Amino acid sequence: MSAERIPCSVAVTAKYLLPHALEPVVRDAAVAVKDTRVLALGKEADILLKYRPETRLDMGDSLLMPGLINAHTHASMTLLRGVADDLPLRTWLTEHIFPREKKLDPARIALGAKLACVEMTRFGVTAFADMYLAENAVFDVAEASGLRMLGGEGIFAFPSPGYGTEEEAFSLLREQAARWRNHPRIRVAVMPHAVYTTTPALLARCRDAAEELDLSIQIHLAETRHETEECLNSHGMTPLRYCADLGLLTERTTLAHGVVFDDRELEMLAAGGACVAHCPRSNMKLASGVARVPAMLALGIPVALGTDGAASSNNLNMFQEMTAAALLHKVNRSDPTVVAARSALAMATLNGARALHWPGLGEIAAGGPADIIAVDMTAPNMRPVLSPTSNIVYAATGAEVRMTMVDGDVLYKDGDYTRLDVAAIFSEAQRAADGLR
Amino acid sequence: MSAERIPCSVAVTAKYLLPHALEPVVRDAAVAVKDTRVLALGKEADILLKYRPETRLDMGDSLLMPGLINAHTHASMTLLRGVADDLPLRTWLTEHIFPREKKLDPARIALGAKLACVEMTRFGVTAFADMYLAENAVFDVAEASGLRMLGGEGIFAFPSPGYGTEEEAFSLLREQAARWRNHPRIRVAVMPHAVYTTTPALLARCRDAAEELDLSIQIHLAETRHETEECLNSHGMTPLRYCADLGLLTERTTLAHGVVFDDRELEMLAAGGACVAHCPRSNMKLASGVARVPAMLALGIPVALGTDGAASSNNLNMFQEMTAAALLHKVNRSDPTVVAARSALAMATLNGARALHWPGLGEIAAGGPADIIAVDMTAPNMRPVLSPTSNIVYAATGAEVRMTMVDGDVLYKDGDYTRLDVAAIFSEAQRAADGLR
Repeated sequence: MSAERIPCSVAVTAKYLLPHALEPVVRDAAVAVKDTRVLALGKEADILLKYRPETRLDMGDSLLMPGLINAHTHASMTLLRGVADDLPLRTWLTEHIFPREKKLDPARIALGAKLACVEMTRFGVTAFADMYLAENAVFDVAEASGLRMLGGEGIFAFPSPGYGTEEEAFSLLREQAARWRNHPRIRVAVMPHAVYTTTPALLARCRDAAEELDLSIQIHLAETRHETEECLNSHGMTPLRYCADLGLLTERTTLAHGVVFDDRELEMLAAGGACVAHCPRSNMKLASGVARVPAMLALGIPVALGTDGAASSNNLNMFQEMTAAALLHKVNRSDPTVVAARSALAMATLNGARALHWPGLGEIAAGGPADIIAVDMTAPNMRPVLSPTSNIVYAATGAEVRMTMVDGDVLYKDGDYTRLDVAAIFSEAQRAADGLR
Repeated sequence: MSAERIPCSVAVTAKYLLPHALEPVVRDAAVAVKDTRVLALGKEADILLKYRPETRLDMGDSLLMPGLINAHTHASMTLLRGVADDLPLRTWLTEHIFPREKKLDPARIALGAKLACVEMTRFGVTAFADMYLAENAVFDVAEASGLRMLGGEGIFAFPSPGYGTEEEAFSLLREQAARWRNHPRIRVAVMPHAVYTTTPALLARCRDAAEELDLSIQIHLAETRHETEECLNSHGMTPLRYCADLGLLTERTTLAHGVVFDDRELEMLAAGGACVAHCPRSNMKLASGVARVPAMLALGIPVALGTDGAASSNNLNMFQEMTAAALLHKVNRSDPTVVAARSALAMATLNGARALHWPGLGEIAAGGPADIIAVDMTAPNMRPVLSPTSNIVYAATGAEVRMTMVDGDVLYKDGDYTRLDVAAIFSEAQRAADGLR
């Protein structure tokens, strides 16, 4: 009988499996993985009857679930964690962040990205969307880390460490797109930084390049009231209307933050098909405001979650982002029923896949990529297990992650990193961070 | 020369020491402990020159800091973690919590408290204030756990599992006060449940008993707008004014929650000297509202932090409570400077000592109790270390706690619990929780 079983690379087994944020938990479960893909999933007994794994990966009393998707970050800014906090936005940016960013060379940008990849791997993030300066260094780091990334060179109407002229910016974009076109884990997007750092002509060129190269777009939008006022002054329109006018409000686009929208704008968003990457902890810490997430979700707008950079939100922990989203909107709407646990989990998984424009991510499904994490349900804060989803969203810290797998490759398990030289990264990062003072 | 050194029980050494939330970090530090007390603290080299420890406890690259103080919880409700979430308050209470609480006997109350003590020990809580039904079971559990507790039988104007008549309630209180009067770690408080579950006469009797027995008072107060409206209807006064009228608004009292206060009430609070135990995550999840913490702190009102019960806030993690407090008030006040990291840390330590009416707690000081935790600063989310306080409040998960010491006694270190039979507690708690369905 064992001769008749279908061979596969690995069978991951565990007490609980949550293959999809909105579906029930399977008990005593297994996922059969062949190379980079999920072959089948279900009850352990059924899977092992049908499949013959080369390796068994028994995660015991853990919960297997889709890897979390960080829909908006600036990985390299992890080097700036804790440089300054609790300051007015302008003081924080002009006196603390910008002067340090001026000193960032590709080596430091790579180092910050490495530190971010260690942290995301440790806390169960399997895919992330990243925008930064001189992003080539980040593409290389992400490739080596084993994580999945949608990356984009931040495009500004002025020179950046990545390029001098606008021509050079778009040459760089084309090079990046060509270089990573067939990579299984690394993809390129067009990432104009924001309305207030670009011009209408530059945004139109970004839109055209995205269409021509068939890339998605991510842009910071409507993060603060100040941004909206400035846009009204400069362009006579709110940031969303301005982008809509420029043809950017399509299914191709993900808007990072999306805090300041009126009712009509929410309708425009829903009709246009763009995604929103909601960053609740960053919005709270910088006092940017509260995005209208319950209203967006009610309109069917795909709202994903992002950590933003560690300079503003201080960590890249998507468990804490889920908790923050679930809690913030309840108190803000005076309604304990909004952003329920499953909804927060869907934002961090299924909607993350939408925001990265990467179908197949965000769930564990036969034929899909094997991006799986195992979360320890034996930690004191996860006991008793009455509702695994509730424990994941409201009780977990993120440190319960015991295993992180991307494309069938185990990147982290029980304290061991398979691809990252963590000790070297930590000491080099400390030195580099101290050097930026 | 070593013969001249002063003997002590243990020297705890670590790369960083934050003895007091508002003071600077000491590098390469040591704390000399003699029996239950701190003998001296400072630079490791200085301490080891002067003191001769029987044992060395080297916590490496950790940060030593005062144990966190959970100023308001219901430990036994940890058994109800995740039974129901995301529901309107009344549905949640009447359909899910109350029916299960009716099934709670002393054995289950003890089991829930044990689970809570495991979690608090693991996440660096060294002292907590607890109010529940049939609290005798909780006193015994806390005593055995090695943690420090201020406990109180919840006093209602109707029978509870702890007592039948009002006379019996006060006999029980006297017994508890007498039994624990000289215990170094366990203290008793008078804990009338709330305005809406008591009568004026009962509250007056609580006040008199507290004075007579020299005990502190803790009461749920002004948690929701609904409570305030009900109090206005029943008594013609807001909850705070009603309590002030009854002579409860003194330095003896800690008010749990304190969400709904007007300007005049904040002044009354400041003048009266009562403490507030702020529970941001519970208030957010139950959509109770946002307490006016920045205004309270500006008036000098001692605001501590509490997790509330795990049925509402889902964990007993004071690191997450600090983050929530620091983030929530920034976005709520549209001001990124309010509740700065140090302020959040002071709330969880120094102000916790005030709220428990237990001088000496909340800091590491010569002559004070040796309630010390060690937090791993080598975790990926704690790198780089530019501002230890910022990392503790904004980047930590709580799982970085490597060691928890109360009264000089190590209760937890690197995965090992010295007093609690964790495996047995976990399996019994799961069985008991399943039995409450």
